[in-house]
Amino acid sequence: SLLSAAGAEPGRRPLAVAAVLPAGGCGERMGVPTPKQFCPILERPLISYTLQALERVCWIKDIVVAVTGENIEAMNSIIQKYHHERISVVEAGVTRHRSIFNGLKALAEDQPDSKLCKPEVVIIHDAVRPFVEEDVLLKVVIAAKEHGAAGAIRPLVSTVISPSADGCLDHSLERARHRASEMPQAFLFDVIYEAYQQCSDYDLEFGTECLQLALKYCHTKAKLVEGSPDLWKVTYKRDLYAAESIIKERISQKICVVMDTKEGEEPVGHLLEEVLKSELNHVKVTSGALCHASGDLEQIISEQCYNFVCVNIMTSDFQETQKLLSIVEESNLSILYPVVVVSVHFFDIKSVPLSQKMEDLMWIREFAKEVRKRNILLCGLLICYPQDEQKLQESLRQAAIIIAALIKERNSGLVGQLLVA
Amino acid sequence: SLLSAAGAEPGRRPLAVAAVLPAGGCGERMGVPTPKQFCPILERPLISYTLQALERVCWIKDIVVAVTGENIEAMNSIIQKYHHERISVVEAGVTRHRSIFNGLKALAEDQPDSKLCKPEVVIIHDAVRPFVEEDVLLKVVIAAKEHGAAGAIRPLVSTVISPSADGCLDHSLERARHRASEMPQAFLFDVIYEAYQQCSDYDLEFGTECLQLALKYCHTKAKLVEGSPDLWKVTYKRDLYAAESIIKERISQKICVVMDTKEGEEPVGHLLEEVLKSELNHVKVTSGALCHASGDLEQIISEQCYNFVCVNIMTSDFQETQKLLSIVEESNLSILYPVVVVSVHFFDIKSVPLSQKMEDLMWIREFAKEVRKRNILLCGLLICYPQDEQKLQESLRQAAIIIAALIKERNSGLVGQLLVA
Ligand SMILES: [Mg+2]
Ligand SMILES: [Mg+2]
Repeated sequence: SLLSAAGAEPGRRPLAVAAVLPAGGCGERMGVPTPKQFCPILERPLISYTLQALERVCWIKDIVVAVTGENIEAMNSIIQKYHHERISVVEAGVTRHRSIFNGLKALAEDQPDSKLCKPEVVIIHDAVRPFVEEDVLLKVVIAAKEHGAAGAIRPLVSTVISPSADGCLDHSLERARHRASEMPQAFLFDVIYEAYQQCSDYDLEFGTECLQLALKYCHTKAKLVEGSPDLWKVTYKRDLYAAESIIKERISQKICVVMDTKEGEEPVGHLLEEVLKSELNHVKVTSGALCHASGDLEQIISEQCYNFVCVNIMTSDFQETQKLLSIVEESNLSILYPVVVVSVHFFDIKSVPLSQKMEDLMWIREFAKEVRKRNILLCGLLICYPQDEQKLQESLRQAAIIIAALIKERNSGLVGQLLVA
Repeated sequence: SLLSAAGAEPGRRPLAVAAVLPAGGCGERMGVPTPKQFCPILERPLISYTLQALERVCWIKDIVVAVTGENIEAMNSIIQKYHHERISVVEAGVTRHRSIFNGLKALAEDQPDSKLCKPEVVIIHDAVRPFVEEDVLLKVVIAAKEHGAAGAIRPLVSTVISPSADGCLDHSLERARHRASEMPQAFLFDVIYEAYQQCSDYDLEFGTECLQLALKYCHTKAKLVEGSPDLWKVTYKRDLYAAESIIKERISQKICVVMDTKEGEEPVGHLLEEVLKSELNHVKVTSGALCHASGDLEQIISEQCYNFVCVNIMTSDFQETQKLLSIVEESNLSILYPVVVVSVHFFDIKSVPLSQKMEDLMWIREFAKEVRKRNILLCGLLICYPQDEQKLQESLRQAAIIIAALIKERNSGLVGQLLVA
């Protein structure tokens, strides 16, 4: 198991691991008034994504977040709203090092009123690196257990130079002999806590980074661990854009086509499923039955599918879609990410005029307004049926393009619209 | 003028400046098969944006791009398709330095069959840094004229460390004493050409960067120039996402509301304009008359407005929108960026049933398909009119949200749809 991988030997206590997240920065490089860790991505603050990434790792027992006094209330609301667990909030210091030190103090056993336990190993991570994976966390923890300190590194993207006093090039550094020091880092708690206790005021203000403090004050040489590109730090506005696109891409990997339970009765629903599979590369298309008893949908939701295409055939009501919406609402799926639901309506243009049908369906707008409050983005999509085979294929391909656009953009400005394939 | 700012003194020839763009890389860091300089952003290859950024600078006389043999044809198609000017294509070498050297050779006067002239100063820039501005180009050129060499620098984002042989931390570099060396760089042509001619095979394969070559082979100490954050290099897939978002944001800054010429006859058109102004922060909303004679629209198009809202009142046809579309098509505006046109239709729900109106307007789909070929993204938007004042305001606000979504996402999958505010 991961716990034994993280250092526990048979018959011994599992390794106690906690994490400290300094989040007191004011984001002056961003060019935006909100500190970057609180900037919204799909309406959720960046720091919540980072907390989610750490929470997923079951062997991290406590997560201590240091935020400035004025943000403590906001931080507590975030924890509550997004159902975060194992999080303690402490007040940040005026520098990054002082914030980390405050987090470590909260974990130290000599705090009388604390519910936290002193861990053997502590991870230090940034609130603005939301894409950290369990594997690199595990690697730095194991290396810290052995070496006392460890940190993730990356190759340099740019050449690093040393300027002379007159603003000219003194020399370029050899790129192959240097690395960028990134996060996460991990330490034996006693090593890093000792380093901070010994640390000079000057280093608490201006010191470069934790690995260097462990070296300077505890003579602990950190083990360096190669990290992946997604450890990057959200620093500039462009990084927020990149983070949003990455998050949108990740939650757009799966689509579930929801049909009535009666197998074989909805060939056109299955046709749509097939076209989605062939047209949308890199997307996993599954199908699920609406019948509560089957448990299909609950299973699919538990596997974090955030996109649903609900097939309604020859009806002007939203019965199927309504069933789906209540299952999604009950599941809490939309707490962390906006869920896209496309209510697809196959209808016979010969028996009902398009215009009539559209009028019937216009009340999808009211519906959409309602579920929008619970972070569900509902749109309608009309497909003419029956048509001759070639035209139907063309309509289904068009439907796939529209569905892909709605899922990709996840723009709440388009909810309640009735689109036509 | 810029030319004199760039070093020409009164009565003397203006400074001759050219640029070399190495673009032979294969983009292995990107995790995508296409070399990153050819990755599409809004369907146009990244390198075309960089060429556009250099072309805008009128005092850069020639731009030499070095691409691998297999990409020369593709590069020539890009130049033709996007109307690039002052570009010469040469074959890249197997390393970045060899590609730059090939570009310099093409500019050197001793090339008999070349139409290019040897410049006094040469800029070296990356094909994957599309957001370079004229001011930093000017700064490096002026500094190169004075010092022989110059390059843009940026503060370090991460601490740089030096690992020991066993993969542990040897020491961290002092962040304040180092900088990241970025592009553009500029050189007196004779300096950098001499450096490359003297350059060892080893340095042509493994040498770090041009500034260091000028130092090593010509004893020229480059002047360092502080650059802005947008000099960053598109390196990883996330950078492509960021670049796309930045480009989309830039072309979404202006909206033109297009109305019939007869002033005062379209109060509701002006109401929409007012609501767009108040609801869409950071967007400049102007209005223009459709009448060819007025020249309004031609002026607005020449100022690079890529978003149009065309107001049609009480008609089921697209006369206004058609006029607008032909003006946009004639202007070549959509060669570089997709242009969004929202055909807004105010209609009286009492005199014509909504469903009837919608059917009339369904042929916007055929229209949209047609103009899509010329990079124009057309959608329809219905607004009920007249309504009581409060309801109308609500509809106009809803319209503003929908228009903002269409402009922001610029997703061709949604063209031809008829939306309802
Ligand atoms: Mg990752
Ligand atoms: Mg710029």
